[in-house]
Order: sequence, then C-alpha cells, then structure tokens
Amino acid sequence: MKIISLEEIKNCFDFNKIILEIEKSFIEYSNNNIESLPISHYQFNDKKADIHIKSGMIKSDNYFFIKIASGFYDNASKYSISNSQGAIVVINANTGIPEFILNDQGYLTDIRTAIAGVICAKYLAPKNINSVGIFGYGIQSFLQAKFLKIQIPQLKNLYLYGRNKFKFDKIKQKFDNLGYQVHISDSANFVAQNCNLLVTTTPACEPILFGDFILPGTHITAIGADDGIKQELDISVFKKASHVFADSIEQCLKYGDSSHAEKANVTLRNKITEIGKLIKTTNHYERNESDITISDLTGLAAQDIFISKYILETLIK
Amino acid sequence: MKIISLEEIKNCFDFNKIILEIEKSFIEYSNNNIESLPISHYQFNDKKADIHIKSGMIKSDNYFFIKIASGFYDNASKYSISNSQGAIVVINANTGIPEFILNDQGYLTDIRTAIAGVICAKYLAPKNINSVGIFGYGIQSFLQAKFLKIQIPQLKNLYLYGRNKFKFDKIKQKFDNLGYQVHISDSANFVAQNCNLLVTTTPACEPILFGDFILPGTHITAIGADDGIKQELDISVFKKASHVFADSIEQCLKYGDSSHAEKANVTLRNKITEIGKLIKTTNHYERNESDITISDLTGLAAQDIFISKYILETLIK
Repeated sequence: MKIISLEEIKNCFDFNKIILEIEKSFIEYSNNNIESLPISHYQFNDKKADIHIKSGMIKSDNYFFIKIASGFYDNASKYSISNSQGAIVVINANTGIPEFILNDQGYLTDIRTAIAGVICAKYLAPKNINSVGIFGYGIQSFLQAKFLKIQIPQLKNLYLYGRNKFKFDKIKQKFDNLGYQVHISDSANFVAQNCNLLVTTTPACEPILFGDFILPGTHITAIGADDGIKQELDISVFKKASHVFADSIEQCLKYGDSSHAEKANVTLRNKITEIGKLIKTTNHYERNESDITISDLTGLAAQDIFISKYILETLIK
Repeated sequence: MKIISLEEIKNCFDFNKIILEIEKSFIEYSNNNIESLPISHYQFNDKKADIHIKSGMIKSDNYFFIKIASGFYDNASKYSISNSQGAIVVINANTGIPEFILNDQGYLTDIRTAIAGVICAKYLAPKNINSVGIFGYGIQSFLQAKFLKIQIPQLKNLYLYGRNKFKFDKIKQKFDNLGYQVHISDSANFVAQNCNLLVTTTPACEPILFGDFILPGTHITAIGADDGIKQELDISVFKKASHVFADSIEQCLKYGDSSHAEKANVTLRNKITEIGKLIKTTNHYERNESDITISDLTGLAAQDIFISKYILETLIK
C-alpha cells in the first residue's frame, strides 16, 4: 500500500488532459459504463460537519475507487486548515487489495468540479462573450474564475456576487491576479445583467438568480445545489431556459437545482439532456442567439473515478 | 496520514483485552451508542468477488472508521494470496482528516468475528463440556477452534465437519497443533451428536444442522449466514431453541440465520435477546441443563469500530 501525497497529485495537474478525462467521465456515465454505489452520507449531530463516501469503477476496469470527502465547516476558523478534507482509496479490481491512497485532502473534488464548469462553458457559452459572473466567494468560485480565463481568454470582466463583503475582502487579491477586471457586488441582479455567462457556486438554500434578470443568450452553470435542499436558481430561470444540460438527469431531478423546478411542475423532461450526450454528439445542440441555457451539476462518482485514474496512471508511468 | 502495517496490528493482539473490547462493542451497540451508515456492497459481475464498506463511530468519540473489506474468491487459487483483503481508514472526527490507514488485509474482521464466537461460548456454553463441533474448514473455523481452546481449556475433542475432504487434507496439520483430539467427518449429524457446543462457519445456502440431531443442553453459535441467502441452521433448530441471542436483533431478523426462521413463521420475538443485553446484565439468562440455545452473529460495524480503536490506541500509547 502506497500513499500518494497532495504534492505528487498537484504535480500531475494538466489542464487540457484533465478536461479530456472529465469529458470522458460524462460520456461514459451517459453510456451507462460506470458502476457506482449509492452515496453514503454521515451528518454529525454535535457539529457542523459531514462525511461523504462515493465509490465505483469503470466497467471491467483494473481499479475500484472509494472517495472519502469530508466537510468540517469550522476547520478554517478553529484550526486554520481547509474545511474540505478527504482521501481516495484505490483498490486493485483483480485482487481486492487496497494498493494506493490518494491523500488529496479534497483537492481532486475541487478540481473535477471546476473542470466540469469549464466543460459546460466550452460547449455552451455564447460566442460573443467578454464578461463572466460568478456567484459565491469560495474555493470553487476562485477555481471557476481561474480556469474559465484559461479556456476563454477573451473574457475581460469578472463580476463577483457575494453577501459577505468581509469574507471577500480577505481573498480579493487572489481574484485580482487572474487577469480580469474584477467587479464586486452584493446585488445578484446587477451581476446577471452584465454577463452572458453565469456560474453559481454558493450553498444557498433560497434562489439567488431570477429569470427576469437573465440576459437573452446567457448560459448559466449551476454548481452549488446538490442535496435537494440547496437551491440557487429560481424556477423562473428554468421556465425561461430553452434547454437544460444535466451531469446526470436522475441526480439533477432528484437533488439538483432542476429538482426544485420539477417539484414546482415546470416540465423539464422535454428539454433536458445529459452533458455526456451533448459532448459525444458534436452537432447535438445548436444554440440560437437568444437562447438561455442551464447546466446543472450535482457531481458524479464518474468524475472522481476518471480524475483519480488519470493521476494514478500518470504517476505509475 | 500514516499506514499501520499488518505486522504492527498483529503485534497488538491481546486475547483477553480484545474480548473486553468486543464485549463493549456489543453493549454499546445495544445501548444505541453507535452511529453507523448502511453497509455499501459491490458485487462484481465478471468475477467471484465483492467489496463491502462499513462505517461509523462511537457517539461523540474522536474517530470515525471506514472499513473496506473485499472477498476475491479466486485469489488463493490464482495468486496464492488470501481471498480476504481490505483496510480501515481512520478519520479524525474533529477535523475530518484521514489520519491512519490500518492495512489489516482482512485480519481484524477475522479476529473480531472469532472473538464474538468466544464471547458467545463464554456466556452460553454448557458447564459440562469437553467436545466442540465446528462446521467448515476455513480461516474462521480455524480461529474458532484456536480461541475456544484458550477460553475453555477443558475442551478435549474437536469435531470438524466439511464437505470438501481434499481441502481439509491441506490444512489438517494446523488444526492438529491446537491441542485437541481432532475428529473429521462429512456427516453434520455425527458432529452434532457428539458435541454440546457447535459453531457453524460455512457459506452454506441450505441448512446443514437440524433440530433432531442436536443434543439437549447444546449451545450453537451460527456465524456463516449474513446476507439473507446463506443459511446454516434449519428452522427446526430454532423451534427447539429455548432462547436466541442476536448480535443485532434487527440485522439477524433481516439477514441472519434467524431470518429464515422468521420467514417460516417460527416466532422468535418472545425468545430473542441481544448479546449486548446478555453481557450487560450478568443474571439475565440462567441456563437450564437441557436448554438448547442459539447465538446468531451477522457482524456489527460496532465490532470493527472497537477493535480498530483498540489497535490505534495501543499503538499511539
């Protein structure tokens, strides 16, 4: 058994290659070529903390992965360490032996989530674009800003929305170094009205984005809602959307942002497609100039599996 | 993150202390003081193999445990390695950081299961006893034989039942060194009729032990059935039993040997008790000389938690 350190994992980072791996994960998920177990979720009663266990493998592959991801929401303030922690156990699928532990401390989850957002922008962002609006100030907001600038270099303006001005002041400099003109606002509508690419990364449990304020031709990537309780997009956004792209239709209708639209009887079935299908068939979706589109990301075990496998195989080489 | 090797784990083995820990695990389980997640179970389609993930913690304790246990049933014949593999991930319950990996390779599961059998014998075996009958030839059969001899030194005869004579010939010497007079038989009834302590450790899916052949005053510990399909005791054994002791009433009625009796309408509710309650209240069960008793063991996450915690704390000291 060998521990792969966070440093070794970070050294394997290759933006373009990881995009390809996460694209493969969406395609193989939609091809029904991933075997995954139900997510185990433990919520601590006596503190703001939880542990998630996601596990699975690519059918007939050589490795089975068990991803342990924890969120301990007082870590930063109490111990000055990241609220996200975790590791990935890699099991040889021919012998059952746990051979590697990727001690990623939550890093790979952050990366695969951010890259999924990049993939949505790659296939769905409008052509004439120079401003992106990102909702939330956390690590995922920062990674989206960073990676979107690499993917779409003509992006000039970054509009950031967040309620906690104090929190943002502490991390502003990080955003300033990404090459954008950064605009900060506590008005979600102001951000929406200045951008035709929007990314929501908050843990909001009430809508922050409403249909009336979305510009025609906008693409929205919704990342925060992943449990059926959290919600970032008001159902009016879904009503206005011409198409919705889900990482998993099943998961999104169960606990993504789409689930709230479904519950409110906004019928999505005739306009929802899986991202794996969008990517696979290059001419699957032709954007009209005024179309509003949504991608709903709840997070797939397939993403964890493909990024872990990529790291492992890069290191073994 | 630190890996604890199998050798380090084995060096912590202390028969009497581990009995106390497993007794505590039963008591705390029955006290409703263990938090555990539903078991995740992955069955490979293309090979005889499975992976189980059990996780949980003692309420408000400092560690959360994730036990990964795999069964790859061609390992021994194909690669000359154990069919059981696995590891236990120890997570700091204050920060979510995975701090230790107990690379036990399935050892602790074998030990905690065997010690549970010893505890049943300690509290339930008849007083006049000199022969034990064990069903099955695998690692669990061997450990039961070994540990029961330590717990009850007056045991003179070991009757072993198994269908696969060839398999037994290969491991006979190991049993011969335990200090018993060893008797081998392919007749389960013969074994039953010579012993008033019986332990079943097979993966049988049809009954091997029948009520008519059980001697009055016998205690039977049933270990093999743990999935609702496997079955070792015929329902006639349950009909004859004056009392049944379950590691978990819920689990045993769902997928232990008891589940088959329940399905056949043998009412157990008025004669089933949890082992944790038996141990806690020393005068809870007074054996009559002719009583036939059963203990049904399906395996508790609590056992994994207590044995892992014991190993960890012994090493940290």
